[in-house]
Amino acid sequence: MQTEKQKTYTPINLAQKSALLTEHWQPRVIAELNDYQFKIAKIIGDFIWHDHPETDEAFIVLEGELRIDFRDGSVLIKPGEMFVVPRGVEHKPFAAAEVRMMMIEPRGTVNTGEAGGERTAQNDVWI
Amino acid sequence: MQTEKQKTYTPINLAQKSALLTEHWQPRVIAELNDYQFKIAKIIGDFIWHDHPETDEAFIVLEGELRIDFRDGSVLIKPGEMFVVPRGVEHKPFAAAEVRMMMIEPRGTVNTGEAGGERTAQNDVWI
Repeated sequence: MQTEKQKTYTPINLAQKSALLTEHWQPRVIAELNDYQFKIAKIIGDFIWHDHPETDEAFIVLEGELRIDFRDGSVLIKPGEMFVVPRGVEHKPFAAAEVRMMMIEPRGTVNTGEAGGERTAQNDVWI
Repeated sequence: MQTEKQKTYTPINLAQKSALLTEHWQPRVIAELNDYQFKIAKIIGDFIWHDHPETDEAFIVLEGELRIDFRDGSVLIKPGEMFVVPRGVEHKPFAAAEVRMMMIEPRGTVNTGEAGGERTAQNDVWI
């Protein structure tokens, strides 16, 4: 009797992927959904003010407390929480202590948005 | 001296949203990212075979163990893990015990995909 071998597919473990991150502020792609990417990053301290004129940007916090400052206020995002920054809204991520987080955004979205500059990370790097 | 009042924005707490779910197999929208939606659902038992010809579908497990069967195998997804089912790939979610999960997919994606039928949930309902 002929039997067909069944495959066992492997899920993406966020903590295991996060443990592979070596540098702060360097997002790494872990999955794609159509033309969107799931990226993880570890951060500490202050980032720069920037916005993404073409796209919203979703943040899901895995570890630590992420504060995102806006020109008119802020949001504090803890593990198990998420927030979507609307397109065109200037924001500045801040982590008093190390934060590990996942971002979901279209492929090609750069971490510094329209601001650019020395904090711009290499884009589309997988881990 | 004029001072401007700063707003405190509220993050989306996944566990709190999940606690609001009343029925199994009824996805509820908790956030939007451009034309994509983040949906949460609680499920138990077997779903039906279906696929989404037009889109990939991302699953992130919050509680429990989600098995997704494919025609050629399966994947077991635990809390803190995710998996992206490619467009057009037939799949059947299964939960031996209750699972709470988040899905990310384009607005308008129906839970039963092209299969339709009595398990089709009302779409685009927020919680």
